[in-house]
Amino acid sequence: MKLQVTQENLNRALSSVARIANSRGTLPILANVLIRTSKNRLSLSATNLDIAITHYIGAKIAEEGSITVPARLMQEFVSSLPEEIINLELDGNKLHVSTNKYNSVVNGVMADDFPVMPAIKAGKSWSVNAVAFKKAMQQVVFAASSDETRPVLTGVLLKTTDKNLAMAATDSYRLAEKQLGKVKEDVEMLVPASALQDLLRVIGDDDEEIQITHDGQQVLFKLSDIELVTRQVDGKYPEYEKLIPSSFAVSARLKKADLVSVTKVSSLFARESAGSVTIVVDESNQTLSIKSVASQLGENTASAEAKIKGTGSITLNSRYLLDALNALTGDEVEFGFNGKLEPTLLTDPNNADYKHIVMPLKS
Amino acid sequence: MKLQVTQENLNRALSSVARIANSRGTLPILANVLIRTSKNRLSLSATNLDIAITHYIGAKIAEEGSITVPARLMQEFVSSLPEEIINLELDGNKLHVSTNKYNSVVNGVMADDFPVMPAIKAGKSWSVNAVAFKKAMQQVVFAASSDETRPVLTGVLLKTTDKNLAMAATDSYRLAEKQLGKVKEDVEMLVPASALQDLLRVIGDDDEEIQITHDGQQVLFKLSDIELVTRQVDGKYPEYEKLIPSSFAVSARLKKADLVSVTKVSSLFARESAGSVTIVVDESNQTLSIKSVASQLGENTASAEAKIKGTGSITLNSRYLLDALNALTGDEVEFGFNGKLEPTLLTDPNNADYKHIVMPLKS
Repeated sequence: MKLQVTQENLNRALSSVARIANSRGTLPILANVLIRTSKNRLSLSATNLDIAITHYIGAKIAEEGSITVPARLMQEFVSSLPEEIINLELDGNKLHVSTNKYNSVVNGVMADDFPVMPAIKAGKSWSVNAVAFKKAMQQVVFAASSDETRPVLTGVLLKTTDKNLAMAATDSYRLAEKQLGKVKEDVEMLVPASALQDLLRVIGDDDEEIQITHDGQQVLFKLSDIELVTRQVDGKYPEYEKLIPSSFAVSARLKKADLVSVTKVSSLFARESAGSVTIVVDESNQTLSIKSVASQLGENTASAEAKIKGTGSITLNSRYLLDALNALTGDEVEFGFNGKLEPTLLTDPNNADYKHIVMPLKS
Repeated sequence: MKLQVTQENLNRALSSVARIANSRGTLPILANVLIRTSKNRLSLSATNLDIAITHYIGAKIAEEGSITVPARLMQEFVSSLPEEIINLELDGNKLHVSTNKYNSVVNGVMADDFPVMPAIKAGKSWSVNAVAFKKAMQQVVFAASSDETRPVLTGVLLKTTDKNLAMAATDSYRLAEKQLGKVKEDVEMLVPASALQDLLRVIGDDDEEIQITHDGQQVLFKLSDIELVTRQVDGKYPEYEKLIPSSFAVSARLKKADLVSVTKVSSLFARESAGSVTIVVDESNQTLSIKSVASQLGENTASAEAKIKGTGSITLNSRYLLDALNALTGDEVEFGFNGKLEPTLLTDPNNADYKHIVMPLKS
C-alpha cells in the first residue's frame, strides 16, 4: 500500500470511524481501524460487532493494499498534523506516515485478522431527506431506554402507516414521536438507539439524502461518503399510539423559554425528591406555576403567564420535562393532561409533526 | 434582614465565593455562604478554613441582618433567575428570595454558627498592578507541587531582591520564575498555590490594583470588591536561583507554534514512556527534532527549523514542555541546555522577565 491523501480528508474519516473502535473489548483488533485502498479511494472502517462504519475518501493511490492500525492513536496523530499532503506507505505491518516535517511509523496488524465488515446483499431500499431525518433523530432518539433488560425499548421504531413514516422511542417514562412524511416502501423496523446516535454524529452538512436498506436482520444507512450497518433489535414494539391522548381536561399554551426557565429554577429545589416538580395550572388567573419542595434546603414556586383551559395539577420529573422542551421546536409549547395519573402531552402548537409524552409521578 | 439587590451583582458575588464553600468537609456549615448587611452594602463570604473570601456588592438595605445558606443551591438558583431586582427577606432562619415570578424559601443556618472570618490587624501592606500580577500567576502557579508531603513546594514564593519582586514556584521537576518589578517593601513569603488559583479566578477586568497585607501568618489580597485571606506556608524555600543556568553548550531559537506542534504530535507516541520525548538539536542542519518511541504502537520523529548553536540531545517530559510553552508569551522561544542531566531553560528571547526550567529525564 502506498498513497497520498490530504490531512483534512484523512482526519475527517478517522473522526467518523474512530469512536466505534473500542479498546476495552475482548477482541483487541476492534480497537483498530481498517485502512484499505479501493480503486481511486481509500476506505476507513471500524466495528464493535453491533455497528460497522466505513468512510470513503479520495486518495492518490500508487500501490493497493490494506492494514489495521490503532484507531485512537491514528486519529489523535492525524488531527495534530498540519493541513498538508500525508504520505502513507506500508512496509510489512508497519505503516509509515509522513509529511514534510513529520515521520512516523505506526505498528499495524494484518487486515486479514479484522472481522469481515457486514454487507446487506438483498433487501428493501428507500430514501429519506438527510436534514429531516437528522432533526427527527435529535428529537426522538434520547427518549429510548438504555436499560438492556428490556431490549425492545433500546430500539427506535421506524414504521409507516399508509406509507407515512414515523420515528418513535420510549423508555416507558416518556415517549417521543416524529412524523417524517411519505416514503415509497412499507417499513417497520427497530434500530438500536446507539446506532442512530452514531449516525447522527456522522451526518455531514452536505449530505442531502440517506439511503436505507434493510433485510430483516440488518440495516444499512448510506450517506454520500459513509456507510453505517447495524443489527436490528428483535421483538415486538409496544403499540404506543394508544397512549397518546387526543383531548385534555386541562391545557396550557405558553412561551417555551418561560417554561424552560421556571422548570430549571424549580429543578434545583427538586434534587432530594429525584427531580419531582408539581405543575399547577389555574384557569382563573391564566398562570402556570411550578412548585418544588426540598425538605432540607427549602422550597420554590415559579410562575409564568399562559393561555389556560381547565384547572388542575400534575407531578412530573423535571429532567424529562426539560428534555422534552429541548426537543420541541418553535417559540411556543402546548401542554395538556387529564387525570393526575395519565400522560402529559407536549407539542408545538404551530407544528403537529412532533409529539412528546411524559408520564406523571405519584404526588 | 430585608433588602434588594440586582440579580447581576448577587450572581457575581455568589460565583466568586461559592467555589470556596465545601460540601464534603467535616463541618457542614462550611458548605454555606455567609450573607451579611454592612452599611449600604451586602457581603457574601465563604471559607474552607485555609482560605476565606468575601465579596462586597451594593444593595438597597431596609433592615440589617445576616444568615448562612447552602452555597451551591443559592448560586445555581440565583444564576438561573432573570436579570431583575431580587428581594431577600429573612424570617427566622428562612431566607425568602423573590422576584416578579419566582418565590423561594431557602432554609438557612444562623450566622453565629459560622466560623469567624480571619482578619489581619497589623502587618506590612503594599500594592501590585492587578493585570501584571494576574499574568504572573498564570505563568507561575501551575509549576507548584500538589504533593502535601513536601508542603514548602505547594507554596508560591513572593520575594524581593533590592525591592524587585519575583514570583516563583517549583515541584522539583520544573520551575517557573517571573520578575514583577519594584515594590515599596521588602517581601519574602510563601502563599499556597491553591489560594493564588482562587485569587486568579476572582480578579476582574476592572481591578487595577491588588493591595497585599501580610503579618507573617496570613496574607490578605484586597481587590476593589473582594478580599481573600489565606494562611502562609511555613518552611524555608529552596534557593532556586542557583539552578537557573546562565550559559549553554547547546541552544535553539524557533517559532513557539512550531515547537508546540512537534511536541504535541510526539507526545502521542510517548504515552507508554510516561511522556518522555528526546529533543535532538543539530547545528549542522539548523533543525530541532523530537523523537518518541512507543514500542507497541510505533515511533515518531518530528522536526522544525531553528537557529541553533551547538549539537546535542536531551530527554524531557513532553507534558512539562507543553506547560512551559503554554506559559511563555511571545512568538519565539529560546531553548538552552548543557549536559544530559542538567536543567533545560526556556525563555522568550524578546522578554527576559520570565524563566522556565524543566529537569531532564534519564534517556
